[in-house]
Amino acid sequence: MTAATDSLPPGFLADLAEYVAIPSDSRSAPMATMRAAAEWLAARLDWAGGRVEETDGFPVVRADWLGAPGAPTVLVYGHYDVQPTGDLTEWHTAPFELVVDGDVLRGRGVTDDKGPVLLVLEMARTMLAERGALPLNVRFLLEGEEEIGSPHLPAYVRAHAAELAADLVISADGAMWRPTEPSISIASKGLVALDVVVTGAAEDLHSGRYGGTVANPVHALATVLASLHTADGAVAVAGFTDGVDKLPPQRRAEIDAVDFDDEEYRAAVGAPELFGEAGYSTLARLWERPTLEVNGITAGGKYTVIPHRAVGHVSCRLVGRQDPDRVVEAISAHVAALDLPGVRVEVRADPGRVPAYRIEPDHPAVRAAREALAEVYPGQEVLLAVIAGTLPATTLFESALGAKTLFFSFATADEKHHAPNEFLRIARIGEGMRAWAALWDRLATGGTR
Amino acid sequence: MTAATDSLPPGFLADLAEYVAIPSDSRSAPMATMRAAAEWLAARLDWAGGRVEETDGFPVVRADWLGAPGAPTVLVYGHYDVQPTGDLTEWHTAPFELVVDGDVLRGRGVTDDKGPVLLVLEMARTMLAERGALPLNVRFLLEGEEEIGSPHLPAYVRAHAAELAADLVISADGAMWRPTEPSISIASKGLVALDVVVTGAAEDLHSGRYGGTVANPVHALATVLASLHTADGAVAVAGFTDGVDKLPPQRRAEIDAVDFDDEEYRAAVGAPELFGEAGYSTLARLWERPTLEVNGITAGGKYTVIPHRAVGHVSCRLVGRQDPDRVVEAISAHVAALDLPGVRVEVRADPGRVPAYRIEPDHPAVRAAREALAEVYPGQEVLLAVIAGTLPATTLFESALGAKTLFFSFATADEKHHAPNEFLRIARIGEGMRAWAALWDRLATGGTR
Repeated sequence: MTAATDSLPPGFLADLAEYVAIPSDSRSAPMATMRAAAEWLAARLDWAGGRVEETDGFPVVRADWLGAPGAPTVLVYGHYDVQPTGDLTEWHTAPFELVVDGDVLRGRGVTDDKGPVLLVLEMARTMLAERGALPLNVRFLLEGEEEIGSPHLPAYVRAHAAELAADLVISADGAMWRPTEPSISIASKGLVALDVVVTGAAEDLHSGRYGGTVANPVHALATVLASLHTADGAVAVAGFTDGVDKLPPQRRAEIDAVDFDDEEYRAAVGAPELFGEAGYSTLARLWERPTLEVNGITAGGKYTVIPHRAVGHVSCRLVGRQDPDRVVEAISAHVAALDLPGVRVEVRADPGRVPAYRIEPDHPAVRAAREALAEVYPGQEVLLAVIAGTLPATTLFESALGAKTLFFSFATADEKHHAPNEFLRIARIGEGMRAWAALWDRLATGGTR
Repeated sequence: MTAATDSLPPGFLADLAEYVAIPSDSRSAPMATMRAAAEWLAARLDWAGGRVEETDGFPVVRADWLGAPGAPTVLVYGHYDVQPTGDLTEWHTAPFELVVDGDVLRGRGVTDDKGPVLLVLEMARTMLAERGALPLNVRFLLEGEEEIGSPHLPAYVRAHAAELAADLVISADGAMWRPTEPSISIASKGLVALDVVVTGAAEDLHSGRYGGTVANPVHALATVLASLHTADGAVAVAGFTDGVDKLPPQRRAEIDAVDFDDEEYRAAVGAPELFGEAGYSTLARLWERPTLEVNGITAGGKYTVIPHRAVGHVSCRLVGRQDPDRVVEAISAHVAALDLPGVRVEVRADPGRVPAYRIEPDHPAVRAAREALAEVYPGQEVLLAVIAGTLPATTLFESALGAKTLFFSFATADEKHHAPNEFLRIARIGEGMRAWAALWDRLATGGTR
């Protein structure tokens, strides 16, 4: 009988166990713990001058192997921080102890992003040892604040743009869409968030002693929020979809060709039925359409008052060329046009705004990635998927370094990222190492732009 | 120079100071404190056999003076418990220390309801001492749980209905509408509360990874809540106003004759403008029209999820013959008829339901009260006002004792009931004693039914 771990390179499990044991939760860990994780990682990059560099927050790990003159340069991106454990009683194993459990490894960060980064380091070290050289120039940028929104990464990248110069960024962060086939994410959605703030009287008023005399901000907010969508689920804000192209028939056909079972998906999320914009399949809505979701409402409570304030928390996921500023303007104009009596209505947009990101399906890096995956997963179709979430680093790298980002992670989206009992499929580690090697070889000869 | 307190009977201030010093906050005080307040009050009723009687909660104070055979019997209702102090830093004086401050007395409970009750006891004791008899039979029922919704009063009153039998209840609780003229409240609104509960998926979903595929319960709730009113502020639920009579021209004229300044009211509540059902003046809406207010919403927050649950907290103030059960049914039917896709919508009504209460303006007790007030406030019009809040004891006394309740309180609605810096106008104490005496004399001769 062969154990799943037999496929791993000698020492890999012990290394990953050491790395997982460092509780580098960027929400709660002290600087010393974060630095320990960074230094651990930098030591694994000694062959490329691995080092810890300061930022205004937790440090970054940098390394450069530039021994392939004339060949392209890639920048490998990933992160060493992890999510909080959450409720420890929900964990079946100790979160910071790497556990082999049949075909999977368990532990906080094992799939997001410690395993997927470590496999690249192991592959590169082995390749260099075996061949005496890598096929292209490689830089590494591994940050410690991804799980808290990378607050200090933009300033760091802009300040060090020349040193980080690369033809292509390859992200070891991200995830394959699902376990059943290999996939490459060619897009991620943008994000803009805002509050709709409705105010009425100066204070909360007794609903009996004042009821019927003043407008209730909660009613006004409900009217605003109910007006944001049509009955069939489309966003009803004029101008919201500016910059969203009609779904090309070819892309629609590609999506329709994906083996996707609505009923299975519905059962998994536990909703009474699926719902969304008419005229699009579930997967087309998820991957290709912008959304506007009310994430919550803060208003009064279960006591008999007319609250003086009601706030709707809204966020929009953007696609195509939607301009986040323009989206805020469109929503503001829509709300103002309602002209609701008896209240003040204000739209307050959050400063952080991220446009959608996309790498063309025929980009040389995507072609190389598909070929690499086809080599590792023979006979399986490589899906072109979308990360319906938002990855701000992609647009940062595009604007600061002028480089596209290729997502090439061997995590899988179902591996309980951010949740208790996070895991990583052991087979993906060997597959990932072979695929990264095949990718680099192809990029070295086929180009990166 | 005459101090405002010169008008008070000897010993009254000292008594009230003792009474206010007992911190009988029914939300937080231990049984011993509540019992101390009850016993203090019972001792002031020794001339009528004052005693403390057990209930399933805090005790009630009972007393009976039945030395007027053939004359009517009235039941005086009030309470000895007070509201919590709230934030002590907002108090300008110590809450449980009676302070004379110019024309007012300050302290927790001084106007709600310790002062207004004590003045009746003082008046009755004095009258009995002076005349040797009261003009009618008087029972007292003073409870200790009014500020927490009188949870044990209904069972107590029903179990002791025979002993509490009276021709009329006179409530020393309540308040005159405003300080500028005497008024009698002839009605209070009913109350029914319910939650609109919308559920979608089994758990909160990442708004990126699932956005566009499932209905958002917050959107559905907004649609439900926005549908409950017309654009002009009327309740849009079919059947809601069943049992609400058209406002009689005479009552409309009475209300229109009240000196009421919309702009002054607007400025006091701090709303940008007043708003409500078209076709009614502000005061007519406040006093005569039913309301449906969304008191709050519990749903998600400011994080990028599609919440799996959204709850709207609704309460309705009822008038006329509106049946609380029927109101719940009407709202439930309205919500069900929306038939929103992708979510489950449920209406969960609270068990406590109170119909509206009204005593006819030409009821002998109201006539007697108007005459008594006219005697104490010569030359001033006595307004017939409405308590737009809800007083469940009124419907309890009507159903359990078959007796109407006359509100005859010498508190005023602006005296910071339930808030820091509660106060009572000193002049109202002497006025109240004279008015109660005049009322009893009139009821003794003019009848109570």
